[in-house]
Amino acid sequence: MKFSPYTDLALETAENICKTASAEGVEMNTESCDLENTFVTIVNITNDKGVETIGKPIGSYITLESSFIKENDIAAHEELISILSRHIKNLCPQNTKTILVIGLGNYQVTPDSLGPKVVDKILVTRHIKDTVPEDINNSVASVAALAPGVMGMTGIETVEVVKGVTDHVKPDLVIAIDALAARKVSRVNSTIQLSDTGVAPGAGVGNKRKTIDKESLGVPVIAIGVPTVVDAATMANDTIERVIDALLKESEKGSQFYNMLMDTAEEEKYTLIKEVLDPYAENMFVTPKEVDAVIDNLVNIIANSINIALHPGINLEDINRYKF
Amino acid sequence: MKFSPYTDLALETAENICKTASAEGVEMNTESCDLENTFVTIVNITNDKGVETIGKPIGSYITLESSFIKENDIAAHEELISILSRHIKNLCPQNTKTILVIGLGNYQVTPDSLGPKVVDKILVTRHIKDTVPEDINNSVASVAALAPGVMGMTGIETVEVVKGVTDHVKPDLVIAIDALAARKVSRVNSTIQLSDTGVAPGAGVGNKRKTIDKESLGVPVIAIGVPTVVDAATMANDTIERVIDALLKESEKGSQFYNMLMDTAEEEKYTLIKEVLDPYAENMFVTPKEVDAVIDNLVNIIANSINIALHPGINLEDINRYKF
Amino acid sequence: MKFSPYTDLALETAENICKTASAEGVEMNTESCDLENTFVTIVNITNDKGVETIGKPIGSYITLESSFIKENDIAAHEELISILSRHIKNLCPQNTKTILVIGLGNYQVTPDSLGPKVVDKILVTRHIKDTVPEDINNSVASVAALAPGVMGMTGIETVEVVKGVTDHVKPDLVIAIDALAARKVSRVNSTIQLSDTGVAPGAGVGNKRKTIDKESLGVPVIAIGVPTVVDAATMANDTIERVIDALLKESEKGSQFYNMLMDTAEEEKYTLIKEVLDPYAENMFVTPKEVDAVIDNLVNIIANSINIALHPGINLEDINRYKF
Amino acid sequence: MKFSPYTDLALETAENICKTASAEGVEMNTESCDLENTFVTIVNITNDKGVETIGKPIGSYITLESSFIKENDIAAHEELISILSRHIKNLCPQNTKTILVIGLGNYQVTPDSLGPKVVDKILVTRHIKDTVPEDINNSVASVAALAPGVMGMTGIETVEVVKGVTDHVKPDLVIAIDALAARKVSRVNSTIQLSDTGVAPGAGVGNKRKTIDKESLGVPVIAIGVPTVVDAATMANDTIERVIDALLKESEKGSQFYNMLMDTAEEEKYTLIKEVLDPYAENMFVTPKEVDAVIDNLVNIIANSINIALHPGINLEDINRYKF
Repeated sequence: MKFSPYTDLALETAENICKTASAEGVEMNTESCDLENTFVTIVNITNDKGVETIGKPIGSYITLESSFIKENDIAAHEELISILSRHIKNLCPQNTKTILVIGLGNYQVTPDSLGPKVVDKILVTRHIKDTVPEDINNSVASVAALAPGVMGMTGIETVEVVKGVTDHVKPDLVIAIDALAARKVSRVNSTIQLSDTGVAPGAGVGNKRKTIDKESLGVPVIAIGVPTVVDAATMANDTIERVIDALLKESEKGSQFYNMLMDTAEEEKYTLIKEVLDPYAENMFVTPKEVDAVIDNLVNIIANSINIALHPGINLEDINRYKF
Repeated sequence: MKFSPYTDLALETAENICKTASAEGVEMNTESCDLENTFVTIVNITNDKGVETIGKPIGSYITLESSFIKENDIAAHEELISILSRHIKNLCPQNTKTILVIGLGNYQVTPDSLGPKVVDKILVTRHIKDTVPEDINNSVASVAALAPGVMGMTGIETVEVVKGVTDHVKPDLVIAIDALAARKVSRVNSTIQLSDTGVAPGAGVGNKRKTIDKESLGVPVIAIGVPTVVDAATMANDTIERVIDALLKESEKGSQFYNMLMDTAEEEKYTLIKEVLDPYAENMFVTPKEVDAVIDNLVNIIANSINIALHPGINLEDINRYKF
Repeated sequence: MKFSPYTDLALETAENICKTASAEGVEMNTESCDLENTFVTIVNITNDKGVETIGKPIGSYITLESSFIKENDIAAHEELISILSRHIKNLCPQNTKTILVIGLGNYQVTPDSLGPKVVDKILVTRHIKDTVPEDINNSVASVAALAPGVMGMTGIETVEVVKGVTDHVKPDLVIAIDALAARKVSRVNSTIQLSDTGVAPGAGVGNKRKTIDKESLGVPVIAIGVPTVVDAATMANDTIERVIDALLKESEKGSQFYNMLMDTAEEEKYTLIKEVLDPYAENMFVTPKEVDAVIDNLVNIIANSINIALHPGINLEDINRYKF
Repeated sequence: MKFSPYTDLALETAENICKTASAEGVEMNTESCDLENTFVTIVNITNDKGVETIGKPIGSYITLESSFIKENDIAAHEELISILSRHIKNLCPQNTKTILVIGLGNYQVTPDSLGPKVVDKILVTRHIKDTVPEDINNSVASVAALAPGVMGMTGIETVEVVKGVTDHVKPDLVIAIDALAARKVSRVNSTIQLSDTGVAPGAGVGNKRKTIDKESLGVPVIAIGVPTVVDAATMANDTIERVIDALLKESEKGSQFYNMLMDTAEEEKYTLIKEVLDPYAENMFVTPKEVDAVIDNLVNIIANSINIALHPGINLEDINRYKF
């Protein structure tokens, strides 16, 4: 049996592949940021060849990385909100009037609570849209928000709940927020991925479910995801690979030992990972101690980026003046 | 302006009206219980006359009152679970196979968190129904559960969310749990009302919304409600009435003072209530200090009554052996 | 038996007494504020006569009232932080170097969770004070913070816990935060009381305990309290009084009815209140629906006022830049 | 630099050392249990030689391992409560009358919330001990309980808070509960360690603090700990060791490769671990997805074992009848 390390980030697969040259069907561009330690990378998967290479659907994957997400620096957070809201706005189809924001995940499990907590901070207006004075009415979109829960608690595939509500609310756009799994520990809680290709809920904590996307909902879907964990089996896998790599470097190429390392490594890996993680083989994750506090930062950045991107009359100053 | 005191309990209106004789269109029966301080009262509203009298739709309203709900007596709770599950089973239509349990209310507001917390303890099976061995499969129903949130947080009328999910899950029955408002302080957290007439979410905390019932969903609805608060304006109103009543008793009937009391009371009442509650006039509730702990008891009693009533192979012994 | 309506606010007693003239031993002054709907009132109780009149110990009681506490207006909150931190600083004894902040109350009961939640936002430094560079060291005080729990959960009088920790930490000053009970609904969540006389924990939710003050701790105590509830019996009492008052106004003074009202009212009151609140007679409180959200505002205002007042090098700008 | 893998469990060190023969100063015995998959192991460290070997102080370490902790089987939990309460009782000094239960850890961080949550379920009696009827009084001990918080939130070394309260409450015994770190994933949430040697708070989540023991408090201390996490660096370390071990097995002893593996492994390990975990090097932990639910089981088992062990008149039947 073979083990496949897991990541929800298109960037993590793309950067491995596109290191030297651009791969067919995969474009990778970076955008400069004024903020230090902050990078925007745009991966476009343009055809089936790219789909195969990266293992994600055709579409745009915008990744915002910043060491400031983990820090309590409000000025830097404002900068991040400004970048993120601009990219969300760019992904919104023209004439988007009604938007449904979906917070995927489980409120009770800290690293999986990002989605439901963002929903709590979304400025919802759909229920009051027609009762407010006209001038205010023009400055706000019609926004609804829902935390549909997780299948283990509801007994319903999440996409079914979302589809049911979408059919009734009839939004022009769905924005879905979810906690993801990264491959590299360094990406945890420091990366926000934005894409126009939908999301498979629960991926980040090991329960991949049916995808929420334009095909399943009949409405365009923007997905916003943040890796809050690394799958423990993936971390074990990558640890093993680093050991092998280190040993390979010290062995002569073509030597008996070198070949032994090359041969046995792959076979043994799965067994070793199972040994290390037994009896939790597929159910453990690695997460930083301060995950609670960082989730609060992420909720603030993402919720306010959405609020600014969706409501024409709301800007950063309002966000500072009025808490949402 | 006139003030109408508010209660969600059919029993509280019925007992005022049926004190001496049965009213037209309203039947009221009591059932004996082995458990002390525990009463079951069944109010049937049978025609439009009854609807007008009681102010609730045609249907059955079963009220279980018990001082044991507030106490940590597991043996008594088992007795209550046994009574309640029997009445839930009786209200279920024949051949009910798929059931959707809806927990109304707001997780963050303690007295309104009953519904979402019950959902957390429901044994959901719909997502695994077809993957379990046949003998187990026959002993469990197909149960799904959802906490749809409150309109102020979602921007969507709750009935719309429930209707959307119902259209997809296609249950034979919806069971909706909600926190209610009582008129009498003595009923708070000591009364469980069961009815086959649906429920208007948020009534208990002052935001009456569109009704979740057979008409709106196209599926029979059993509503389970518990008063966890008294509306503060209603308590003020009833306090005023008791003062007036006490004074009337001491006045001679027909005297000038008696007449003055009769005249002025009704007019003044609204003004007085507004004065007492200003500036929160319609947004305050009265609740006991220990509401958190009592909600836990209620969640246990109601969730397990539902689990036993719905799953043919689950009984009180299983509930004791396996926590749900 | 007689019922005494209850308030923790010195102002509420003082304003009833000092309406026309200043009472002996009680000085009452107001301070002008730039912010609309915002008032600072200072009640000084200067001798035993004042103690008797107001029913609170000798000392200063500073009350900040503002309708903005309930609103999400960050600019106004900054103004309130500026006023409150100035008054806290004034109450601090000279050369205060080590401060212990005590958050009284119960984390699990929303209206009583103010104290523990403020503690979560206090910038504690005592454990790192000697390890930081000297220039930073001069800009921060040595601050510790503790949420000692409530007696019903710990089995220990709160003052004993605080005394035990105080004896070890040896602070120059204790600042204690607690949720209080107001008499007027209008004061709930709109009033912050500051005093140098200590606090009796749990007063706000009906369990008055031994006082935390200079006498019991051997260290000066600043108490910061916010009424988050009205005792339900007090609200019932005041409702009754308003009815009687309204009826008195319409009766001729000296008439038989007038005298009857005067006579019977006081006697009946206690019986009436018990009737209304039975079986919860002494354990119910009245609180606004949105108490959760307002508590968050209060926590932000109070914690940051304390942070600015205690740490010489921290100002409003830092509070805006770095979240604590 | 060298990396030392970390465990809080004496058993995990002892079993590595005592595999073939008993080590000097270390006795290791097992006790038979009726419950399947359930083991009790007693490690006694009897002298300084044993202290050096195991790296823990002189004393008894009783480890209860059971696969049932993770399962919702109430009958099995009762069996575990019966075993655990018996061992707690055995460790209690004779004539113990007043007991202080200390719940170490951080309520907000799920895997570290075990201690504070156990405190919530302890039947505290110290505050009512002298007011209850004599016959009841004889059947309960005088029990107090406190969650002292964590140093990062209070600014106070936890042992200082506990010492301060101990000096006031003057208990005959302190029982301290804490979440621990295991070395093996298989021990997480399936092991309860009981010892009479005290505890260093926060060890389980990487912040080792001053020890709470008889020396620091002046009162005997029983520590109850459960590993809820594995330190991520320790897991990485053990993964590397397993790779090396697997490769060693395939190499000829004495061969060049064999020697190279033996040489380079130790040096590289620290660098590799740092690479894998960067930038979170010392702050990540591995925990199972369902940690929330398992913590609830553990809280129930531990709190009720303590309740039965301490109060002479309380037995398993009472625990079933009355929830604490």
